Amino acid sequence: MNSLYLIPSTLGDTPPHQVLPDGTLDVLPKLSVFVVEELRSARRFLSAAGLKGKIDGLEFHTLNEHTTPEEIEALGALFDRGSVGLITEAGLPAVADPGAALVALCHRKGIPVVPLVGPSSLMLALMASGLNGQSFAFRGYLPAKSNERKSAIKKVEKDSSLFSQTQIFIETPYRNDALLADFLAGLSPATLLCIAADLTLPTQTILTQTVSEWRRKTNFTIGKRPCVFLILAQSN
Amino acid sequence: MNSLYLIPSTLGDTPPHQVLPDGTLDVLPKLSVFVVEELRSARRFLSAAGLKGKIDGLEFHTLNEHTTPEEIEALGALFDRGSVGLITEAGLPAVADPGAALVALCHRKGIPVVPLVGPSSLMLALMASGLNGQSFAFRGYLPAKSNERKSAIKKVEKDSSLFSQTQIFIETPYRNDALLADFLAGLSPATLLCIAADLTLPTQTILTQTVSEWRRKTNFTIGKRPCVFLILAQSN
Repeated sequence: MNSLYLIPSTLGDTPPHQVLPDGTLDVLPKLSVFVVEELRSARRFLSAAGLKGKIDGLEFHTLNEHTTPEEIEALGALFDRGSVGLITEAGLPAVADPGAALVALCHRKGIPVVPLVGPSSLMLALMASGLNGQSFAFRGYLPAKSNERKSAIKKVEKDSSLFSQTQIFIETPYRNDALLADFLAGLSPATLLCIAADLTLPTQTILTQTVSEWRRKTNFTIGKRPCVFLILAQSN
Repeated sequence: MNSLYLIPSTLGDTPPHQVLPDGTLDVLPKLSVFVVEELRSARRFLSAAGLKGKIDGLEFHTLNEHTTPEEIEALGALFDRGSVGLITEAGLPAVADPGAALVALCHRKGIPVVPLVGPSSLMLALMASGLNGQSFAFRGYLPAKSNERKSAIKKVEKDSSLFSQTQIFIETPYRNDALLADFLAGLSPATLLCIAADLTLPTQTILTQTVSEWRRKTNFTIGKRPCVFLILAQSN
């Protein structure tokens, strides 16, 4: 039966077999239609994952934050012709990206959905943080405006403390160090903050410290590396 | 430098190379000391993952929900002798299990922590649910007592609606169908409920429907299969 395969991609330029198991890589040669978040990086990924030389024979459609509900609905017709692979930027499709709309369409139409194993920057960061892995929330991006962001940080720290819940965030890379500065300015000294950058890459950095310890690391910068931020407030 | 490797395990009897990439499997032969949640299944997993015949030469220590803080502190001495692998039941260590305490100890002692890629039942379920993957919370188990559970379900549905946040739960397998019944009794008809059972196994079942559609499936039972439950309430 024609299905939607959810294909994780690498987090950066890792060789695919390092982070993708056989059960994922073996699906790729069987597919000829892909829905992708970013055409160029999806083609580069498939090429590295064993389809080099075959890319021009494949069919690509785009699904990103600009895709309208009508355009997503139209993608449903692809399944009349065969199975479809969904690939998004850096990691698991339909997590922290707009891909879930296509998955939801498949459930409405009774099209089977097959999730495949691969790297999740959020889970790698959570595992490695040492923070609470039995209760956690991913909240995506904090507000960009300074005053809204300050009150959001306070609110998130309060929720974390009330429910002993690890709070997970991502940021546009060029704003990483600004977000770190906002966390250090706005969080309580005893709150734990984990910074997990360049996951699965040779330059991987994972560090969990209290806010008061972070404040003493005055030379530390993240730079424009892909980064996950995690906080866990101490319960009152 | 001696490090803590976080080693994902299979979700059931899948051949390891189907769900674990080379970057994970290649670490195993380099380690001789393991901290594990359950001795028998960890030995079986390592044997299937390429260490067959070498298991008796390995050193195992247990970390489960009964391990005291003093016993965890004592595990720190293992790193004086070499690197250590952490393996928990079914999937990612330190997520939805007690392993984070050992990771936290490593951060306090400056011991590097290396998370490896493998299957996460929570993320496979989230990807495949079609529910919101840009905001989600994992809450572990709901309260077991009937009246507390009923009010928890109402609270969780309200939070989901307020923040458009996917809520993720697990349950002890023999209580799966009781939890499904409680969800169908307590949730609003328009709320989306996804049931994801036996992930990565040949019997994998993933279905997202509204509560009102689920209520019409009177013959559906999950049974004692490992299962992830996800809900997303419609915003008011």
